[in-house]
Amino acid sequence: MIKPVLGFRFSATSARIRKDGRVDVALAVADQDAVAAGVFTRNLVRAAPVDVALARVRGGVARAILANAGCANACTGRAGLEATLESTEAVAQALGVAPQLVLPASTGVIGQVLPAARIAERAEELVEMLTPDGYEQFARAICTTDRWPKLASAELGSASLLGIAKGAGMIHPDLSAPGELHATMLAFLFTDARVSRELLESCLSEAVDRTFNACTVDGDTSTNDTVLILASGAAEYRPTREELVQALEQVCGTLARSMVADGEGTEHVAEIRVRGLRDTDEARRVARTVATSLLVKTALFGKDANWGRLLAAAGRAGVQFDPNAATISVGDVVIVQDGVGLGAEAEKRANAILKHPEYVIELVLGGGSGSFSYLTSDLGHGYVDVNAGYRS
Amino acid sequence: MIKPVLGFRFSATSARIRKDGRVDVALAVADQDAVAAGVFTRNLVRAAPVDVALARVRGGVARAILANAGCANACTGRAGLEATLESTEAVAQALGVAPQLVLPASTGVIGQVLPAARIAERAEELVEMLTPDGYEQFARAICTTDRWPKLASAELGSASLLGIAKGAGMIHPDLSAPGELHATMLAFLFTDARVSRELLESCLSEAVDRTFNACTVDGDTSTNDTVLILASGAAEYRPTREELVQALEQVCGTLARSMVADGEGTEHVAEIRVRGLRDTDEARRVARTVATSLLVKTALFGKDANWGRLLAAAGRAGVQFDPNAATISVGDVVIVQDGVGLGAEAEKRANAILKHPEYVIELVLGGGSGSFSYLTSDLGHGYVDVNAGYRS
Repeated sequence: MIKPVLGFRFSATSARIRKDGRVDVALAVADQDAVAAGVFTRNLVRAAPVDVALARVRGGVARAILANAGCANACTGRAGLEATLESTEAVAQALGVAPQLVLPASTGVIGQVLPAARIAERAEELVEMLTPDGYEQFARAICTTDRWPKLASAELGSASLLGIAKGAGMIHPDLSAPGELHATMLAFLFTDARVSRELLESCLSEAVDRTFNACTVDGDTSTNDTVLILASGAAEYRPTREELVQALEQVCGTLARSMVADGEGTEHVAEIRVRGLRDTDEARRVARTVATSLLVKTALFGKDANWGRLLAAAGRAGVQFDPNAATISVGDVVIVQDGVGLGAEAEKRANAILKHPEYVIELVLGGGSGSFSYLTSDLGHGYVDVNAGYRS
Repeated sequence: MIKPVLGFRFSATSARIRKDGRVDVALAVADQDAVAAGVFTRNLVRAAPVDVALARVRGGVARAILANAGCANACTGRAGLEATLESTEAVAQALGVAPQLVLPASTGVIGQVLPAARIAERAEELVEMLTPDGYEQFARAICTTDRWPKLASAELGSASLLGIAKGAGMIHPDLSAPGELHATMLAFLFTDARVSRELLESCLSEAVDRTFNACTVDGDTSTNDTVLILASGAAEYRPTREELVQALEQVCGTLARSMVADGEGTEHVAEIRVRGLRDTDEARRVARTVATSLLVKTALFGKDANWGRLLAAAGRAGVQFDPNAATISVGDVVIVQDGVGLGAEAEKRANAILKHPEYVIELVLGGGSGSFSYLTSDLGHGYVDVNAGYRS
């Protein structure tokens, strides 16, 4: 169940950006100026809305988030930048606030300029329709190839945290505070706790690093990845750092898992757990290489506990370990011990686990304390279908 | 046409390693001790035959290459090592030479121990069948998922160079002299020129770097990648360094292109040319990121000149350039200038080029002199079919 979050209202409508006429533009507004932070794609090729949101969120204060599906407004040069400015200015005017308090985010096809006039025409309507329980409509409006809207919430002392996200393809976030972050995923977080700008940004980075930045569908990092958080303070509760990180990890973790589960053509979520390396960074590199391996992902699609592919992928991560000491298990079934397969019977039991919608694959590669978990999906015909014909 | 190469003989037979009973073991023998060099996978997880070939080729002299398909003998521990030693010893005995002069190479399923006894049983037969024109049988015997055998040759002054290769999946070579190199591709080169060990190794590394190490099917580097070269000297011709590098690049380049064309489920070979960066290394990193992008490869499968994906992949390579100055063309059709798409008409003409079996995609990302070309393939349903059910 989604818990209400005080001080925010939401709305959505169709601005005919998507060809199918579905709702495609969404607005979230804080009743008062909210404390704001964000992390953005690290891709060198950044869409216009990322440039604008990144510049505006540095102020540490925001009033609204204007998001759209159907058009990423990426690789659109000067015209794209002007379109983002124009659409946010129209909404700012309808709200009666300064344009720099409106943070934009876009997702959809690359290379087409955002039809700003169509959004501007709907600005008044979006403001009029704002309602505290409009978050589900907001979540639907930002979907592209998503099969379901993505929402999650957590308690935060006497306050709460609400998260809304989209993402199904071009998913391999690498998000960071302005200057760093990467996939198209969008996530928007709203809390009514009272938090300083500094605490908000540092806790967001920490939580994102272990959630959105630790999941992949296709290894392709988007030009538009954006995570924004607004804190209204309306619940008058001041969380500790630990409480805030925990709530953020819970919400971002749920949204990341939902994105991977909804990966284009995906049927399974695999958690790749790597343990026993020297440090977290080494474990992350190995987990990431295994999670993005095409041979691993097609084996998962085939429900084949092909541990040779798992070990071969680990071996090319550029991290030192002794392959002859490796242990690999699928769920509770050990299939490799001391680098050698345990035979057909174990593999058969592992293959049965690979039929489940979610499972854990664990690689223990030594005696060190470095560990990391990465979420990935199987990759099959559905992914090819979606991506070979996405623009047509 | 394949030119004869003096001083070598070849044979192949079935040792029932492959389930389908096809020829699966191949032998190449030099009439006298030959000068030898090799480059091997950089994957930390190395198959037993790689360990053995790597140790033996350090001697700089070899007499034979024993290769098999159907079983990679990787991740097989002590038993795998003993199987490789046993099979090469049986062949050495049949030839009447020292075992350390026989270089092994294996390709096939990971995690199964090579059935050495079956090869040993065939050792005498393999030696008896050796013939100077048996190279085509050799090429057929090392195929796995390959649709065709891969052979190429070049003149080398009055001498010649013959190359035999296999590879269709797990192709992303990263080969280097002992200590470095990566994909399962196997390539064996034979020349009757007279060349020193040092020249042979340094020219091989240079040629491999621009050919095998610059091609990819799925970005997955194998545990078994091996390139070996033997020089008999029988033609009594001493090539210059330039001549040798040129012949090696010609033969290795032809074999690399043939492997990508034969990539699992592949219909097109795309040469990704990156120009205008600071140096070759930067250009290589960008070309490699574009060439391995799943979104780029599925777009090529869809015959969709999706330049947004090309530019987004370039942008996440970790190399600095100005996206607003980027020019992208498909064949002779420019589709992006100054970072912005040139519209539907240009894209339509580019899409027509993407129907060809081979084409060039060029990204000019600045005014620097750094350039690099990478060969890649489209990725579609065929790749999924082959890899979701490879072991079954």
